[in-house]
Amino acid sequence: MYSCLFLRILGAPWEADTRPNDVMIVTLTEGADPGLVRDALAGLGLWASPFEGRRGSVQLFVHSHSGDVNRERILSVAGVADISEPASRHPRVDVQAASVRFGEIELGGEAAPVLMAGPCSVESEERIHEVAERLAAIGVRFLRGGAYKPRTSPYDFQGVGTDALRWLREAADANDMLVVTEALSEASIDSVAEVADLIQIGSRNMHNGALLDAAGRTGRPVLVKRGMAATVEEWLSAGEYCLAGGAPAVVFCERGIRSFDDRTRNLLDLGSVALLRHVHQLPVIVDPSHGLGRRDLIPHLSRAAIAAGASGLLIEVHPEPERALSDGPQAVTFEEIDSLARDLRAEAPSAIFATG
Amino acid sequence: MYSCLFLRILGAPWEADTRPNDVMIVTLTEGADPGLVRDALAGLGLWASPFEGRRGSVQLFVHSHSGDVNRERILSVAGVADISEPASRHPRVDVQAASVRFGEIELGGEAAPVLMAGPCSVESEERIHEVAERLAAIGVRFLRGGAYKPRTSPYDFQGVGTDALRWLREAADANDMLVVTEALSEASIDSVAEVADLIQIGSRNMHNGALLDAAGRTGRPVLVKRGMAATVEEWLSAGEYCLAGGAPAVVFCERGIRSFDDRTRNLLDLGSVALLRHVHQLPVIVDPSHGLGRRDLIPHLSRAAIAAGASGLLIEVHPEPERALSDGPQAVTFEEIDSLARDLRAEAPSAIFATG
Amino acid sequence: MYSCLFLRILGAPWEADTRPNDVMIVTLTEGADPGLVRDALAGLGLWASPFEGRRGSVQLFVHSHSGDVNRERILSVAGVADISEPASRHPRVDVQAASVRFGEIELGGEAAPVLMAGPCSVESEERIHEVAERLAAIGVRFLRGGAYKPRTSPYDFQGVGTDALRWLREAADANDMLVVTEALSEASIDSVAEVADLIQIGSRNMHNGALLDAAGRTGRPVLVKRGMAATVEEWLSAGEYCLAGGAPAVVFCERGIRSFDDRTRNLLDLGSVALLRHVHQLPVIVDPSHGLGRRDLIPHLSRAAIAAGASGLLIEVHPEPERALSDGPQAVTFEEIDSLARDLRAEAPSAIFATG
Amino acid sequence: MYSCLFLRILGAPWEADTRPNDVMIVTLTEGADPGLVRDALAGLGLWASPFEGRRGSVQLFVHSHSGDVNRERILSVAGVADISEPASRHPRVDVQAASVRFGEIELGGEAAPVLMAGPCSVESEERIHEVAERLAAIGVRFLRGGAYKPRTSPYDFQGVGTDALRWLREAADANDMLVVTEALSEASIDSVAEVADLIQIGSRNMHNGALLDAAGRTGRPVLVKRGMAATVEEWLSAGEYCLAGGAPAVVFCERGIRSFDDRTRNLLDLGSVALLRHVHQLPVIVDPSHGLGRRDLIPHLSRAAIAAGASGLLIEVHPEPERALSDGPQAVTFEEIDSLARDLRAEAPSAIFATG
Repeated sequence: MYSCLFLRILGAPWEADTRPNDVMIVTLTEGADPGLVRDALAGLGLWASPFEGRRGSVQLFVHSHSGDVNRERILSVAGVADISEPASRHPRVDVQAASVRFGEIELGGEAAPVLMAGPCSVESEERIHEVAERLAAIGVRFLRGGAYKPRTSPYDFQGVGTDALRWLREAADANDMLVVTEALSEASIDSVAEVADLIQIGSRNMHNGALLDAAGRTGRPVLVKRGMAATVEEWLSAGEYCLAGGAPAVVFCERGIRSFDDRTRNLLDLGSVALLRHVHQLPVIVDPSHGLGRRDLIPHLSRAAIAAGASGLLIEVHPEPERALSDGPQAVTFEEIDSLARDLRAEAPSAIFATG
Repeated sequence: MYSCLFLRILGAPWEADTRPNDVMIVTLTEGADPGLVRDALAGLGLWASPFEGRRGSVQLFVHSHSGDVNRERILSVAGVADISEPASRHPRVDVQAASVRFGEIELGGEAAPVLMAGPCSVESEERIHEVAERLAAIGVRFLRGGAYKPRTSPYDFQGVGTDALRWLREAADANDMLVVTEALSEASIDSVAEVADLIQIGSRNMHNGALLDAAGRTGRPVLVKRGMAATVEEWLSAGEYCLAGGAPAVVFCERGIRSFDDRTRNLLDLGSVALLRHVHQLPVIVDPSHGLGRRDLIPHLSRAAIAAGASGLLIEVHPEPERALSDGPQAVTFEEIDSLARDLRAEAPSAIFATG
Repeated sequence: MYSCLFLRILGAPWEADTRPNDVMIVTLTEGADPGLVRDALAGLGLWASPFEGRRGSVQLFVHSHSGDVNRERILSVAGVADISEPASRHPRVDVQAASVRFGEIELGGEAAPVLMAGPCSVESEERIHEVAERLAAIGVRFLRGGAYKPRTSPYDFQGVGTDALRWLREAADANDMLVVTEALSEASIDSVAEVADLIQIGSRNMHNGALLDAAGRTGRPVLVKRGMAATVEEWLSAGEYCLAGGAPAVVFCERGIRSFDDRTRNLLDLGSVALLRHVHQLPVIVDPSHGLGRRDLIPHLSRAAIAAGASGLLIEVHPEPERALSDGPQAVTFEEIDSLARDLRAEAPSAIFATG
Repeated sequence: MYSCLFLRILGAPWEADTRPNDVMIVTLTEGADPGLVRDALAGLGLWASPFEGRRGSVQLFVHSHSGDVNRERILSVAGVADISEPASRHPRVDVQAASVRFGEIELGGEAAPVLMAGPCSVESEERIHEVAERLAAIGVRFLRGGAYKPRTSPYDFQGVGTDALRWLREAADANDMLVVTEALSEASIDSVAEVADLIQIGSRNMHNGALLDAAGRTGRPVLVKRGMAATVEEWLSAGEYCLAGGAPAVVFCERGIRSFDDRTRNLLDLGSVALLRHVHQLPVIVDPSHGLGRRDLIPHLSRAAIAAGASGLLIEVHPEPERALSDGPQAVTFEEIDSLARDLRAEAPSAIFATG
């Protein structure tokens, strides 16, 4: 029947019962009392509004910010005849595993938080080797660094380019680290994919379907940063573009959204991090450097991010922030990241990491 | 001189050197290189843009999301002639102590996090006594509960009123707890002040100067929740209304701001919590119940709030959320808050609380 | 039956068929093709998403930003069995007339746009008389002016108070004008009501139920400014508080909402003005002074506001903006408002006013 | 000297005195009274805050939402020693002409508003010819239609592709129309440039520097839609990428920004349209279709957009919206656009177009 075709092009959502709840329509049995059903749903953590039909139908509409509840549990509430939902826009993301393996490193799930760090941009061969060596000693597993930089103005420093990619790879290899670096253009995605263990798509390109698809086609895992004003659904759909293109896995990265207040550079949304980790069961990390833009708050929000459920942190480090070619004010020093890394290790076995 | 009068009506901002930085103008010495000064400021964590004058003046403008830096340190940078700033809009808040005492309980600073909990609204005398007794056993020190409820619609349940205030006080007294409850109206502020150890001003009234002033005039400490779209500066200025009115102290409460995404009820801004605690050195707590609206995320964000620097949590609890007269879907059960309280106690001596 | 009671406490929404559409659930007849029904609804301007039930139910969910369509028309679409909706939160607002009469002046509906103007604050008796005389000559029908000013800081100028109310009334009477002025406090609402033909509730108090209710109880019409981050539904519900309290009529005023961009003081939302005027059929005016904060853009957006459907404009005028005690930079001069008034008169019979 | 090099890499901003004001620092002469200078600046429409220096310097900071004022006028205020500003991030945009010529058609400046219309996506050869013929008869000068569609989900209809480009060009040529169509990818930008008189960059790609640059390199004029949460400065900088890449001209298009209210699909910001047209003197058009998403409000906001200063409208039209492959609910019919076109013609000589 057409209705099935229409709704099931991408597979059978009802078989994927682990898919988290979002909006729902709850249809009542005849004669059921909508007030009582609403109360029962409230008991389960669902915000439900009664809808009354012109010709007698009565439903409850369950809002998006309700808690996640097993569907069978909802169907078992007295007075509930059926629940219906829209098809998922991101079925591949829905069934992706909670963690991703990079050789011996596991990112996501119950694994210990992973540190990714490095300079905003790769500035010279010597500098990136020095940085990699010191970060490796601290326990940082992914070396980050921009070869291409997304900038608001075409006249700002745009990154060193392909040479920087090579230096980054060599510095990582010399220190047994993995590489995460940003791709800015379809034209250079293949050279990025050659050196990157994890290809970063920045927030400015989260809605750029062509680049997301191209990143997926490289066959590399992709780190998808949330767009400046992207909803969680749009963010997950950006990941879907990568998986549909061919990426083996997607890691999500919250880096702050746009706000009306300028006391922090962006507004870090840790609620969405908890949602992705604990409800969607997806690997999600946090970039507190861009999220806050303030070196003095980065350690505090790094801990908060882990407590909320982040499986890793992506942090800008610079040995001499006053000499950084970009984003110096938000770069932390080796001493600061070392102190943070020690704290995270110390707390690793404790409740803040075992919040699952 | 007029210029002094103009700027110093509220006291001498320069004497209050502990006041955190916000925007600043940095004037250069003659012949200084703005690029080098900018780099030096970046090294300190300051985002500075050069401004070039038509008649030769050169300044750097330091943005609001810069890190907090001792002013003498900035003045000591080579090439810096002077730094200038606007007068504070909230001089009394600037000099308030980092913690507030309520008898034997200390809220803020290095004190252990304080739990405030109770039902969204006080529904009956028996119920609030039962709730208080169980919460006290868990270690909750403040009993919360609404006698008056701010509601979007005039037809929603508006709270039980003055009887509820009495029940709340008696239930708290019977269990050696303190009372925090919301005042909604100038007309009833005195009856609220009679029972409350801490008068709550809700987010809907954060811009209501008449009520803030009236709350201050009662002589009670005031809990100021952040408005739905209030900047940090406006939030602090709301506290200033209370202190100017006569309040002995203000405690700030982040409860989520309005967002474009509806997967959480509001958007919890933990960056602003870290800012108030670690930079402004003010007592600040978090209400994860309204911040998220999702029972399933409240424990995770409660831990994150403490890690970010919150000195307490304000949480909605209901023994039977399916029978709550309001906000049932976001109420947690006794079991859930007990588990959270245990975690917080266990972690109390650890790094997540000693983030200062 | 309980279900009816539950949903119909405030009257029978189904009898008020002129109430505009918002979200809806469309239930399909058995065997109907959801794709075809969705296309037919798209043809009517409705954004509908299919929801598929676990136990066979199929519905379409109609989104809030759909066009307004007669319900009988929707019910007549082939395959539609029923449509259901939540009860209105503002039934009195829904049935309020499109225009309000103030003596010989009609505000709203097809009436010519009404100008309301005056200084941000009433500064002296002489000054307000001078202003009133000149504005009356230009064709301004409502004299505005603040006796009490809502200010972010308690140390900013708070208005002259009760004397200013008297001066305002006398100046209006002397020039055959009406008075619109803001009430900030329950304590002074009666003195405001004594002089005001239209009581203004400012954006900072739009969520202040106690004040909205008190304004309603005075028996005066109320001007409800939209809150800084208020949804249209919340704005209408604020009006409902006034009507439920006893106000004979409510006029809505868009004055800009909070935004992330600071090139205008606020973000003027003319889409919501068109929505209130053309879909909800309510009297709505625009305050371009606060909406933009820029004198150079006020004339352009004033025309745009009228074109969008505003039934009036509320504009800050000052004979000498450089001497204004508050908001001088956004005050326009007599010459500027005269020029605007002439344009509006010239265009009054033309299409931009006959957009209904 | 380095300071000059540092600030003047892109030319001498001070020679471009027509560049509109944004933030400024006003340095006072020794002994000047900051209160008096502030009042004088308020008289000019400038919001200025006094900054007091630790070592005696006094400045006023002029905020971004101030009116545009000739710099010589500011410098002539008694007590003003100098004004300083940051270098422009978009010097080529600053000096672009107010209007762009496309053969006999002029877009921008004092020229009559230009209509651009067509279907959301080009669906078939016959259909686009039919649409073009009817739109040409109505007076529409640009035929729009998507060959490539940016979609949130990779499973949504992505457009017909290169065939659609050819059909679009042929349909336009057959009716003496120009073509505006969107480029989504660096890979297909050259085929888009072959058929387009104006290359559209959509809001999802406004921050995609690689695509903006590629569009510029084609040598075609570029239509830059504002990003969902882009500031005006970022929007202008996106235009700068195109001009720096080689585009002969840029036209800006406001299409609504993201909001917390869902009664309209997006939030149309006509204040920014007035700013670009009347202050920046740039060609700017409005897309009310995406801005509102509601067919019933499009005519009203189209008129408002022209009144605010838009030099054109970009509107989605479909002969049978119920058969549209995308965005049917917001497509207007031929009858509706004909009626709108007639109104605009009738009003063309009137004040709403002579708003300069």
